[in-house]
Amino acid sequence: MDEFASIRLWTEGRQAKQWQQQRGVVLGIGDDAALLDPAVPIDGLTGPRQIVAAVDTMVETVHFNAATMMDEDIGYKALAANVSDIAAMGGIPLQALVSVSVPRSFGPERVRRLYDGLYACAERYGVAVAGGDTTSSPQHLVVAVTVLGAVEAGRALRRTGSRPGDAVFVTGPVGMSAAGLHALLAQPHAGEGAVPAAACGEAAAALVQAHRRPAPSVRAGRLLLERGTCTALNDVSDGLASEAWEIAEASGLRLVLRERDLPLAGSLAAYARDAGVQPLEWMLYGGEDYAMIGTAAAEDAKPLQELFRREGLPFFIIGETEAGEPGVELIAEASGWSGSKAVRRIPLAKRGYNHFA
Amino acid sequence: MDEFASIRLWTEGRQAKQWQQQRGVVLGIGDDAALLDPAVPIDGLTGPRQIVAAVDTMVETVHFNAATMMDEDIGYKALAANVSDIAAMGGIPLQALVSVSVPRSFGPERVRRLYDGLYACAERYGVAVAGGDTTSSPQHLVVAVTVLGAVEAGRALRRTGSRPGDAVFVTGPVGMSAAGLHALLAQPHAGEGAVPAAACGEAAAALVQAHRRPAPSVRAGRLLLERGTCTALNDVSDGLASEAWEIAEASGLRLVLRERDLPLAGSLAAYARDAGVQPLEWMLYGGEDYAMIGTAAAEDAKPLQELFRREGLPFFIIGETEAGEPGVELIAEASGWSGSKAVRRIPLAKRGYNHFA
Repeated sequence: MDEFASIRLWTEGRQAKQWQQQRGVVLGIGDDAALLDPAVPIDGLTGPRQIVAAVDTMVETVHFNAATMMDEDIGYKALAANVSDIAAMGGIPLQALVSVSVPRSFGPERVRRLYDGLYACAERYGVAVAGGDTTSSPQHLVVAVTVLGAVEAGRALRRTGSRPGDAVFVTGPVGMSAAGLHALLAQPHAGEGAVPAAACGEAAAALVQAHRRPAPSVRAGRLLLERGTCTALNDVSDGLASEAWEIAEASGLRLVLRERDLPLAGSLAAYARDAGVQPLEWMLYGGEDYAMIGTAAAEDAKPLQELFRREGLPFFIIGETEAGEPGVELIAEASGWSGSKAVRRIPLAKRGYNHFA
Repeated sequence: MDEFASIRLWTEGRQAKQWQQQRGVVLGIGDDAALLDPAVPIDGLTGPRQIVAAVDTMVETVHFNAATMMDEDIGYKALAANVSDIAAMGGIPLQALVSVSVPRSFGPERVRRLYDGLYACAERYGVAVAGGDTTSSPQHLVVAVTVLGAVEAGRALRRTGSRPGDAVFVTGPVGMSAAGLHALLAQPHAGEGAVPAAACGEAAAALVQAHRRPAPSVRAGRLLLERGTCTALNDVSDGLASEAWEIAEASGLRLVLRERDLPLAGSLAAYARDAGVQPLEWMLYGGEDYAMIGTAAAEDAKPLQELFRREGLPFFIIGETEAGEPGVELIAEASGWSGSKAVRRIPLAKRGYNHFA
């Protein structure tokens, strides 16, 4: 089958033309390039706007392997990672261009499943798949997705605006994806297909789901942008410590996080206990949670939390910023034998997430 | 070295901020996503506009190998292939997002050379590199580039507008890239670095250059759009026959090409003669020339040719369109022993370009 027939097989009829038009697609897959309308009316977006553009790549054996991800998950997550980047700018994702390099061993049926997952994510977030390129690959699957979105001109949420005395927050639990990967890699894997989530046990089900089907929140980014008190925002793709470092360096200040306020999901606590590990490493250095870490004017931290609560979205106040040499610290409390509390400030390393280290 | 330090090493200081701003880049590399101004003033572009967006991927061993391309060439060509897609819509390329998956064996110095070539191409075509993602790769280099451009709303040159009786043209010689690859693969290759062009002999120098550093013409696309008589346009990435087929199928008609009018470059003729091969196979089925094939109102074909001549651009009228079942034919002439001419119509296969077949 030639490239064009394959692409048609994988993409045709997935999204209605009108649905795509509502997301600015004037001309989709099937010509030299896609045509997009930068002024298409978008609910909740008024005035002059800018394009938000991000690209993210997933590589077999680096970001996933045959045991950890089902084909559908690979497609889903490749797009979700980009949606997260758009959300972390306060933008609205609209269109995607998809590059897939497929090893011969993969077969058209597996590519179709990859696209099933990608289109499921596209539907979930209202993203029109507007273009793509499919090539063969000598050995490993590589998926590179570019997502374009829209944001009010001059209002995107960057990493650079944090001020000393701001509150530090995170919009969801962290460490779940890394723990999910841990659970998957702990299972024996023989032959065909990925490890079923059920094989990892009940406690790990939510963790495996967090790893395979991350759920960035575009709504959370929009709330933060509209509110006007968010001073910096970053998605947690490379781990909480690493992303906090990025804000610290971009804004030129220190982020001080409180260990006791870090959101520890019940499923993560339970799994870590059973596995005999401390969950803190995953929470600080595990990546791909796609929650967002940010800073906001201190006096608006509680009102923001209340606003998120009303929308049914998590919002955890985990620390504050301080003037000083850029860096990230953790305030850790250890209970002594007498019941006394020892408080220590631990500098957090800048290292990012390494999937299969 | 971490990912961010690496990306800075490869991309920082390459393009001045003001130069990027003139191409619509509000915020470039260094945050979750790039911010682009869809209304930035662009010379020669007036009125409402649309975004033109394309993605192209180059995979080691599929599109190149250690012998055929220098590191700089890989970067250059990855971007040029996308520029060609924008040009073939009549658009103006403005920004690029770059995904590079790098095998450990490649080393940071080779990646820097890849970026040297990519930025050389970006400079040549005025493209601002606005974002990217760098990951590791288990074994093979993969480069996926997305290019965004601008075009007057409703005026992009598509594949669908061709009418029976139109002239068929091509905006440059074809088959040179495939012949250049042939010349490169014919050389012995041992160890480090790509085959030097000089090793292929004088006749092949232009062919090797055509393969390694394709030269799409944005100006040609703009001339065709502004003229208003071009009814369909496609870039020759997959070979002349394959691209002619795409116009035939998209427009619902036949393209009839005349063998004697196909542009045969002198260097290609000379190399083919020395190598003892017929150049026609390369001209019809060799890919990656990045000239453009199109159709135009028959009465404007000669004036268009004259317009191109005045601009110093090639323009070859190679056939015409006919009503009928979609397809592509070649009118071949064979001289008989008596001096008579036998004219045959040969249907051309739809097959595309296979680099290392």
